[in-house]
Amino acid sequence: MSVTAPAGFTAAGVACGIKASGASDLALVATDDSAAVPAAGVFTANLATAAPVQVSRRHLELSAGHAAAVVLSSGNANAATGARGMADATRMCELVAGGIGAETTEVLVCQTGLIGIPLPMTCLETGIPALVAARGGGPEAGAAAATAIMTTDTFAKEVVVRGDGFVVGGMAKGAAMLAPNMATMLAVLTTDAVAEPAALLSALRAGVAGSFNRMTVDGCTSTNDTVLVLASGRSGAAPGPDALAASLADACGVLAEMMARDAEGATKVANIVVTGARSDDEAHRAARRVAESALVKCSLNGEDPYWGRVVSELGSAGVGFDPDRVAVSYGGIAVCRDGVAAAHDQAAVADHMAGATIEILCDLGLGPGRGVALTCDLGHGYIDENRTTS
Amino acid sequence: MSVTAPAGFTAAGVACGIKASGASDLALVATDDSAAVPAAGVFTANLATAAPVQVSRRHLELSAGHAAAVVLSSGNANAATGARGMADATRMCELVAGGIGAETTEVLVCQTGLIGIPLPMTCLETGIPALVAARGGGPEAGAAAATAIMTTDTFAKEVVVRGDGFVVGGMAKGAAMLAPNMATMLAVLTTDAVAEPAALLSALRAGVAGSFNRMTVDGCTSTNDTVLVLASGRSGAAPGPDALAASLADACGVLAEMMARDAEGATKVANIVVTGARSDDEAHRAARRVAESALVKCSLNGEDPYWGRVVSELGSAGVGFDPDRVAVSYGGIAVCRDGVAAAHDQAAVADHMAGATIEILCDLGLGPGRGVALTCDLGHGYIDENRTTS
Repeated sequence: MSVTAPAGFTAAGVACGIKASGASDLALVATDDSAAVPAAGVFTANLATAAPVQVSRRHLELSAGHAAAVVLSSGNANAATGARGMADATRMCELVAGGIGAETTEVLVCQTGLIGIPLPMTCLETGIPALVAARGGGPEAGAAAATAIMTTDTFAKEVVVRGDGFVVGGMAKGAAMLAPNMATMLAVLTTDAVAEPAALLSALRAGVAGSFNRMTVDGCTSTNDTVLVLASGRSGAAPGPDALAASLADACGVLAEMMARDAEGATKVANIVVTGARSDDEAHRAARRVAESALVKCSLNGEDPYWGRVVSELGSAGVGFDPDRVAVSYGGIAVCRDGVAAAHDQAAVADHMAGATIEILCDLGLGPGRGVALTCDLGHGYIDENRTTS
Repeated sequence: MSVTAPAGFTAAGVACGIKASGASDLALVATDDSAAVPAAGVFTANLATAAPVQVSRRHLELSAGHAAAVVLSSGNANAATGARGMADATRMCELVAGGIGAETTEVLVCQTGLIGIPLPMTCLETGIPALVAARGGGPEAGAAAATAIMTTDTFAKEVVVRGDGFVVGGMAKGAAMLAPNMATMLAVLTTDAVAEPAALLSALRAGVAGSFNRMTVDGCTSTNDTVLVLASGRSGAAPGPDALAASLADACGVLAEMMARDAEGATKVANIVVTGARSDDEAHRAARRVAESALVKCSLNGEDPYWGRVVSELGSAGVGFDPDRVAVSYGGIAVCRDGVAAAHDQAAVADHMAGATIEILCDLGLGPGRGVALTCDLGHGYIDENRTTS
């Protein structure tokens, strides 16, 4: 139950042969009547932008923020593929548009997988018609789509959030290269709320800022990051901008947490909260610095409450910092106060470190700024997953 | 043969009990007549500055850039130790000053090891007199000092560079938390060149900028980074600023290469060279981004020439970047040209990747800027070394 939960959407997922394993690798999310509805997207900050990102951006411009469908494929990122990659991504949209009866510019495209390898278009020429034929409503269709976008993910990521008279559904993939601006990942959200394109975009940006962009696995920012939302309006409910943004943020937050939990090789997630910074922005930057630290992440893997590394990262985060004011706690137990070791219940801290979710609170003692970051540990699994592409 | 190679210096290294293993952990570099000579230092950019860094900075100020000795200890960083840490670091200088017959402010101090643990001063109260008594000239004394500053280093790092009529010697330690601004590490250089404090500082800064600050292991910047130089003037040779800077840079470069080679868990080093950037600064930033990438470093560990990750990092480095102009080569063999895959001799690239040093050249095709970074691979060894402190 995910992208098909709000009224007005269908979905599908099939295997078309991009993945040599034969696993499903092609997904569709479309309005049930093929009509273009208000749509919005946020995309990677990486300048090595993949072809599907460029095509989706252009289509949203040409359609003035409307879309009838999103086609997604996994196994090949169609990044660093030049003019041919652009033609291939556009052709995918054209095939979907022809199949459902829409304009090519009303179809958006997302891709994930290896960089630098031309797309096997013969798979897509036959796969997309089969995908369109398979589309349907109901939870199974949503699940099929969510499964088809997985790469090294170990489980499909779906969410449904109920607002006041409307529903938001979503699916996402992402297990490595998750970093702020954006977390590297794909996500498609659907809603039956009534919203104009501009309002939808601003609500989406707010939702992403507080969720995906607060998450980091390895500090890398991918070529393909995309979050899209389509609003069918079928519920008839027209939430205010804050209410819509809150529901989108809830959905994004749940998907972000799933992604951190499922990060390559991760055995734990950690919430890094920084308080007492000079500003919220500085607090977020400090939290991110701690969350991206290889040394801190190794300590998490070893369940070692080595707060000295946390303090060292705070001190090099490029934000206001006074070594005599900093305090650090794990799971609510203070281990450092006024910049030096604090006597504490070591068994209680050890218990907390052994859990699946570690809470690290850092107080800088300088001001009202508060920020958060979501991360995971760094263990052998991450290296094993990433040392070779074969 | 290292810090004692230039005329006018003595050294020593002993075990005083900071390290539970009984390994040597206390080192001295001093002028042979205990006279204060021109000295300069560059220190960590981390605001969580360890006590020894604060004390050395203050002593250099009070002595107007002169020092008679440097005392170094390993096993405990004396960082995040508050007022007591400051008193302890000062006391170490006082003990050395009393032993050799100098002012306390003429002694500098460097420490490395765990953060947040008070220094075992009883070890140092007895250890420093023994250290002073052990000081001598010759290669063995230099080697003893270089050995006593090791932490997870697997070999002592020493260098001698001969200039025109003068000699530069040096020793360093560092095996984790090596990052630019500065690479986390300690280094002491000695020279018998004639140089005033201001000229010495500017030569040191130039030398560090082109060596230690171009190296990264994990992107972390430590609380204790320090590079010091003392100039005895005994050679009578007064090199110009460029000649002195060049010799210091050579010495720093050799030590930096040793540190990258000996980084925790490293099996390979990689030189990342970026050309064609809009400026040298942008080229250096792009090179550092590639060098710090966990994904790129995993690929190095797996000997996988996955250039797509390199391009992705260049695109997210925050510098001018055109995806259609970028080129990447490994060991001089182009694997990506004009932003897309280039046909190449895969066996030759595989041979290069299997070697101990990997050369990655990235051309951005935008301008005359050139920059470099030195890094190593990320393997299980790094995690095993860092997951717990016990």
